[in-house]
Amino acid sequence: MPHTEKKLAGETVYSGKILRLERDQVLLENGHQTVREVVRHNGAVCIVAVDEKDNLLLVRQYRYPYAQEILELPAGKRDGDETPETCGRRELEEETACTAAHFEKIGALYTTPAFCDETIHIFYAWGLGPSSQHLDDDEFLTVEKVPFAQAVKMVLAGEIPDAKTQTGILLAHQLREGGRFPKQS
Amino acid sequence: MPHTEKKLAGETVYSGKILRLERDQVLLENGHQTVREVVRHNGAVCIVAVDEKDNLLLVRQYRYPYAQEILELPAGKRDGDETPETCGRRELEEETACTAAHFEKIGALYTTPAFCDETIHIFYAWGLGPSSQHLDDDEFLTVEKVPFAQAVKMVLAGEIPDAKTQTGILLAHQLREGGRFPKQS
Repeated sequence: MPHTEKKLAGETVYSGKILRLERDQVLLENGHQTVREVVRHNGAVCIVAVDEKDNLLLVRQYRYPYAQEILELPAGKRDGDETPETCGRRELEEETACTAAHFEKIGALYTTPAFCDETIHIFYAWGLGPSSQHLDDDEFLTVEKVPFAQAVKMVLAGEIPDAKTQTGILLAHQLREGGRFPKQS
Repeated sequence: MPHTEKKLAGETVYSGKILRLERDQVLLENGHQTVREVVRHNGAVCIVAVDEKDNLLLVRQYRYPYAQEILELPAGKRDGDETPETCGRRELEEETACTAAHFEKIGALYTTPAFCDETIHIFYAWGLGPSSQHLDDDEFLTVEKVPFAQAVKMVLAGEIPDAKTQTGILLAHQLREGGRFPKQS
C-alpha cells in the first residue's frame, strides 16, 4: 500500500516576496488528522560552471538566515514559468558575467521535503564566454574561481555548507569521473 | 570587504509546529533597505547507515509538499537542545529499528540558505543491531534496503530527489573510496 495524505482544508498564512506559507488540515492514512505547514516556492536553478582551466565558478555572498558569508554555486529563483535552462543561463550571466556554449542538466533536488516544495535544477556548463554582471537590487556577491578538484576536496572537508553546492559538485565529479563530461585543462 | 546585512527590525509572522516565519527589515551594504523572509527551524540529522551486507537503509514516505512518496535517508528534527549524535541515534532507532555500534559525523548542510536557517548534520553508521521501530503519531514510512553501490547509481540516475539523501550518499561514497570507512561485504 503506498503511503498517502489527503488535503481537507487549507489557508494561506503569509504571502511574501520569495515564499508563500500555507497551513493545511490533512487526513492521514490511519484516518486521523494533522496539520501540515508548507512553504510554497517557485523553484530555482544552480549551475556547476567550469572555465577553460577547469576552475569552478563560485559566488561568495552574505546569507542573512545564517548571518554569515558562504560560497555557493551561482543560482537563482525561476521567474514565473521560465524554463530551468533559461533561468540557469540568465542567472549564470547575471551573477558571474559568463555565457556558456554547453549547458546540460545533470540533476535536480528537493531542498526540504518535510515542509517546502522547492525544486532546484542542477546544470553543468562549460565553454564559457564573457558577458557582463547584472545583480538584483538587494544582491551583493563576489565571484571566486576554485580548481574543480579543490572544490571536491572542500566539500569533503566540510568547507562548503550549502546543500545544492555540495550535491552539484559531487554529482558533477562522479559524472566527470564516469566520462560523461570532458575535464577542461 | 566582506558582504554583510544588518537587522533593523523584525516580526514573527507565524509560529507553528515545525517552523517559525520571521519577516525582518534589513540594512544592505549599499545603505538601502530590504525585507528578508526567514524560516527558522531547529535543525535536523540524517543518517547514512549500512548493514553487514553493505545495504543502505532508506525510508519511503509520503511528502505532502510534493504530493508523492520518495526515498530518503532516515532523518528527523532535533528535539530542543538535543545534540546531533543523540538525535541521529534516536531517529535511526525510531525509523529503522536499528542501533549502530559506529556513528561518525561526515558532514552538515544548509538546506536553503536564501530563506531558511536549517542545518542538517550527516552521520555515517555501521555495525547495526536490532531494536524496535517507534514512529511519531503523524509519521508513516517503510524501510527499504538497497545495496550501497546501487544507491550511488540511483543518485546519478536522478532517482533520489531529496537533497540530504543525494549529498549523504555521494559524500559517504567519496569517503569510502578514500578509505575512511570499511565497505561491509
